[in-house]
Amino acid sequence: MKKVGVAILGLGVVGGGTYKILTEHREFYKKNHGVDIIVEGVLEKNRERAISLGIDEGKIASNIAEICSNSDIDIVVEAMGGIEPAKAFVLAALNSGKSVVTSNKELFCKYSYELEKVAKKNCCGLYYEATCVGGVPVIRALLDNLQGNEILSLTGIINGTTNYILSKMADCGASYGDVLKEAQKLGYAEADPTSDVEGYDSVYKLSILSSICFHTKVPYTEIYREGITDVDIVDIRYGKQLGYALKLLAIGKNGDNGIEVRVHPALIKSSHPLASVDDSYNAVYITGDGVENVMLYGRGAGALPTGSAIVGDIIYCATHNGNNYSTFINTEKADPAVKFIKNFESEYYLRLSVKDKAGVLTKITSHFSKHSISISQVIQEKSENGQVPLIILTHTTSECEVKKTVDELNALGVADVVSIIRVIS
Amino acid sequence: MKKVGVAILGLGVVGGGTYKILTEHREFYKKNHGVDIIVEGVLEKNRERAISLGIDEGKIASNIAEICSNSDIDIVVEAMGGIEPAKAFVLAALNSGKSVVTSNKELFCKYSYELEKVAKKNCCGLYYEATCVGGVPVIRALLDNLQGNEILSLTGIINGTTNYILSKMADCGASYGDVLKEAQKLGYAEADPTSDVEGYDSVYKLSILSSICFHTKVPYTEIYREGITDVDIVDIRYGKQLGYALKLLAIGKNGDNGIEVRVHPALIKSSHPLASVDDSYNAVYITGDGVENVMLYGRGAGALPTGSAIVGDIIYCATHNGNNYSTFINTEKADPAVKFIKNFESEYYLRLSVKDKAGVLTKITSHFSKHSISISQVIQEKSENGQVPLIILTHTTSECEVKKTVDELNALGVADVVSIIRVIS
Repeated sequence: MKKVGVAILGLGVVGGGTYKILTEHREFYKKNHGVDIIVEGVLEKNRERAISLGIDEGKIASNIAEICSNSDIDIVVEAMGGIEPAKAFVLAALNSGKSVVTSNKELFCKYSYELEKVAKKNCCGLYYEATCVGGVPVIRALLDNLQGNEILSLTGIINGTTNYILSKMADCGASYGDVLKEAQKLGYAEADPTSDVEGYDSVYKLSILSSICFHTKVPYTEIYREGITDVDIVDIRYGKQLGYALKLLAIGKNGDNGIEVRVHPALIKSSHPLASVDDSYNAVYITGDGVENVMLYGRGAGALPTGSAIVGDIIYCATHNGNNYSTFINTEKADPAVKFIKNFESEYYLRLSVKDKAGVLTKITSHFSKHSISISQVIQEKSENGQVPLIILTHTTSECEVKKTVDELNALGVADVVSIIRVIS
Repeated sequence: MKKVGVAILGLGVVGGGTYKILTEHREFYKKNHGVDIIVEGVLEKNRERAISLGIDEGKIASNIAEICSNSDIDIVVEAMGGIEPAKAFVLAALNSGKSVVTSNKELFCKYSYELEKVAKKNCCGLYYEATCVGGVPVIRALLDNLQGNEILSLTGIINGTTNYILSKMADCGASYGDVLKEAQKLGYAEADPTSDVEGYDSVYKLSILSSICFHTKVPYTEIYREGITDVDIVDIRYGKQLGYALKLLAIGKNGDNGIEVRVHPALIKSSHPLASVDDSYNAVYITGDGVENVMLYGRGAGALPTGSAIVGDIIYCATHNGNNYSTFINTEKADPAVKFIKNFESEYYLRLSVKDKAGVLTKITSHFSKHSISISQVIQEKSENGQVPLIILTHTTSECEVKKTVDELNALGVADVVSIIRVIS
């Protein structure tokens, strides 16, 4: 039987999960996939952690060179995260002729071109299913199932932490700050949650996914980004009342005018399949010109779900020719012919706090008319201390016109625009 | 640039959709996949249909031998359906060294062993993503993404016609017969709807999917089957009231006691992601020991969605080594060591029509106790003409005990068991 040796770099949540799956399923893989996959080495600076997982001391390497020179190792799993030393280690592994499986979205998003070039030069495989949306089979679905389609759009809930926080806020009516603290206690959010809650994690994943979807490099720097730290429970409540759920969405669109990529909170109609993706579940909703709408749903993070994606790549690599996992991100920079649309169009939800005076609503709505923004729904609540909460939903309009309108409204002296949220019906 | 010639056998809905996608996307594939895919031949007895699709008369073959002997053809798409002559044509194509892409679930379910043997002998690829759930990427997800998991269960809404009918019944309160007629008019159901509404179509797909999931041949003859022809709108209404949606489900489970495979209508809790899969949408909900729950959702049928799956296989075949799409269904018959569980367990919904007499409810519930069936919920409606509609929901129990209880209740002379529906909470 074919033997395949694996090394795991980094035994944190994902690396540890991968180790657990590989060792517990060794006989299962021998029986069902005809390959004996053996963990031949690990690289983990916390030696105690490695030993507590049951790893033979003799298999704990002291440095990357030991991994690279070990001829029993065929595949190197990089589950360290961050840029360095992960990047140097991946390049070293590839240059020593080993295929690499990575879950490192930041590294792959920023350096895929360089990594792929080195992988090709060395005839090694470079697999990255685990970089996006944990155990949800999305990258291979795009590459090997939906590749006959022109992908028109991709809309995803692709970060588990923020979806957990927003779901809990909606369920319990608690504030962002309170839910974040609880999420940190439960291990759903990191001590420094910036990468998740500010949307950077979603941006990296969207860069990878939209590059595949649109057959051109979509640099993460082109992606508009807004996190969830300013989300107010009041808007989640009004949204619910209007039939919408508030989610942090990653959106990629490809149209005649160019590519549009953005990560921001949005109110999404409750009948949309993404609206009921709750807790730490993730999903990607893809529209292709042949397949119509497809949604791929599951756990976007966690030791075993992400480990499942890594192990899927390991078995694929071990049972196919190592270097036949082609990607479409084959340029270092964006194609200069591709235009990235910045002034995108959307429906909008605006919450205003308005002075309780005759004629104010007329004054406000006239500014929408002035910018040709069509209003689809208005909720005017009862006055509270002379201030009236006013909710306005618009039909599709341009971001730029909305911003102009908001500036004018704020300058009026009778209304404060408290929240602006994009809406997907 | 690599040129790949394709022949399409059968230009019905699926074959026609495939032709349309391939011809309209030829430049797109050249640009993005580096391969020139050309339809070099078709086999279609309705010559007018072929011509109306814009196919060159010179490319319309008179018989399968012409396709097989045409050296410009590398890949043969079988989109005819049925067993013969589809089987003979597929074998002829494989024996002439051409890879085959098929959407024929009945053929693949019944003869995969024979077809794969011939494909391997001739070093040809045999691709079958389109046999199951149209454009939803489920087969390759199981083979190439989730293969590191022990799959514990698969629950699917895998037939578009029946899901359309049941959704419309729920939305409009119309009867099965009325909705079926409308569905036939709109092209959602065939003139002879037997294969769909009696569950045969779902059975073929479940046989293929559960064979892959459980790494052993699951013959379609082992699958318990019940269609939707007896579904009563009354039960859909009561189900809704109790928080459930009625769906035709295909269920495969693998446990310590064996494999359980069944297709039947079931009430599924409205919070379950499958409950909101409506109209002709399909979805497969998979639970693996690493990945936890994954749901793959999309159009399960139709010209372009199924064409998308076929074209996905064509491009895969054209850009990889033709014969590296291994499957796990490598035996002709079920492994004699595998036990198929027939007396499965479930929660149950029972609707009774009960005589309006003192002590009847006690009498009825005593028969549940006798068989150790625990009741979770009871709705007793107001008497209508001396008959009381009585709904009983049970906790998990065995099918066999429920049947014994029902026989006893029917023999009592005071109650008729009108409906028995399995429930998934």
